[in-house]
Amino acid sequence: MEVWYAEIINIGNEILSGRTINTNASHIARRLTSLGFTIRRITVVMDEIDEIVSAFREAIKRKPKLIISTGGLGPTYDDKTNEGLSKALNIELELNSIAYEMLLQKYSKLNIELTEERKKMAMMPKGSIPVENNVGVAPGILISYEGITILATPGVPKEMEDILETFIKKYLKEKPDVKYIESSFLIRGVMESSIAPYIKQLVKKYDLYIKTHPKGQELTSPLLEIQVAGSSKDENEIRNRIEKAIEELKEIGIKLGGTILESQV
Amino acid sequence: MEVWYAEIINIGNEILSGRTINTNASHIARRLTSLGFTIRRITVVMDEIDEIVSAFREAIKRKPKLIISTGGLGPTYDDKTNEGLSKALNIELELNSIAYEMLLQKYSKLNIELTEERKKMAMMPKGSIPVENNVGVAPGILISYEGITILATPGVPKEMEDILETFIKKYLKEKPDVKYIESSFLIRGVMESSIAPYIKQLVKKYDLYIKTHPKGQELTSPLLEIQVAGSSKDENEIRNRIEKAIEELKEIGIKLGGTILESQV
Repeated sequence: MEVWYAEIINIGNEILSGRTINTNASHIARRLTSLGFTIRRITVVMDEIDEIVSAFREAIKRKPKLIISTGGLGPTYDDKTNEGLSKALNIELELNSIAYEMLLQKYSKLNIELTEERKKMAMMPKGSIPVENNVGVAPGILISYEGITILATPGVPKEMEDILETFIKKYLKEKPDVKYIESSFLIRGVMESSIAPYIKQLVKKYDLYIKTHPKGQELTSPLLEIQVAGSSKDENEIRNRIEKAIEELKEIGIKLGGTILESQV
Repeated sequence: MEVWYAEIINIGNEILSGRTINTNASHIARRLTSLGFTIRRITVVMDEIDEIVSAFREAIKRKPKLIISTGGLGPTYDDKTNEGLSKALNIELELNSIAYEMLLQKYSKLNIELTEERKKMAMMPKGSIPVENNVGVAPGILISYEGITILATPGVPKEMEDILETFIKKYLKEKPDVKYIESSFLIRGVMESSIAPYIKQLVKKYDLYIKTHPKGQELTSPLLEIQVAGSSKDENEIRNRIEKAIEELKEIGIKLGGTILESQV
């Protein structure tokens, strides 16, 4: 099965200083995972041209199908994503006339002047498609480069989410032809290190991603969430495979002295 | 002023699939920022040897003072950080006798056998110092490489936090000789794009990091959080500089028709 890799780039000092928790990355990751993409890497970089250029160039080198960035599209001095992206792709930055129209409409409706700072939000690499922002002002930047689809969105979560949905509905034409399914259950009284060798075997046997998430105290009161996930073109097939693996995992867990607590698909 | 760069590497498919929000990164970032470090990059990679090796090697190339990783130190098949780190540094993996002692004590107290899976947690690159884990089992791995301090911690937040604190107290001898101060206030009724040109000037004038965080609707009901931050060897000097910048920012905000809502240092 072909893997459709995607990468996420988050631009913003506020994430790097720990001030902001990177929920943008997890939102995008979850959304793309549900579409069958595999996120290979998440990179958070500073609001600096050179850092933004590096992040895009390095991601492009790994040849994912899709790169989605957040942050740095606003009107302030430290919003540098359009410039960084343009430099990374070596494509001239220009005033995008459609984006300019979008801004003009929003501001003129309220009788607000389109200053240089505001115009900046319409500057995009040549050949970009501006993606309408229904929540805020700055449009997203969509551009195709060497077969890689690149979408730059603002950092404000609601604006990012709005642009991401428009992108998925309107512009994301080629999607992985797979269904991703994930299921998990809780087991009390089994140490992660006790079940580890069995999981290793089951991963091979079922060709699934199985992961134990320790929630308790390994030595004194072990509590594990066991997650089983996989993708397949055939939804029934992958559901069956995951169910069988979970059944076997539960049997092993009980044999090791554990109690199954709950199950969720 | 010399910048002390640090980098964070988070290893784990659960972050890349969006299942887990990367609070580990923000915790470490906040802690290191408060010590005067500047986090240059956060990289999240898969539980795969090649990905882990790449992440460490790329971070090392950027020559930060400090690299802290989370995840991949447990007993399961997909815990591969010790192996990945060893390969990235080209330093042999060996059974660390001190780490082995730590494990032996924890398990033997409870009459639990030290299986191969459990022993794995004592495998570290030659020359590593194991950092005691007071919450869970797997010790942290501390190693110095080409002048860079590298600390690998488990992915369970409480274990990571415990090991990080021990590291800071016991092992982090060279720290940046600066104090980082941050302050912010809220202003209603001023668009981010209106205050943008003034902020650009003030950043230069005061040599501070000033960032606007939009919290409302830019066009119809703008609400901005304005954050001002900086570092200096002299705590009083940096506090004064930030206070002056905030005073001037508030004056500008009021001139632009805004209302100051609250202030916090």
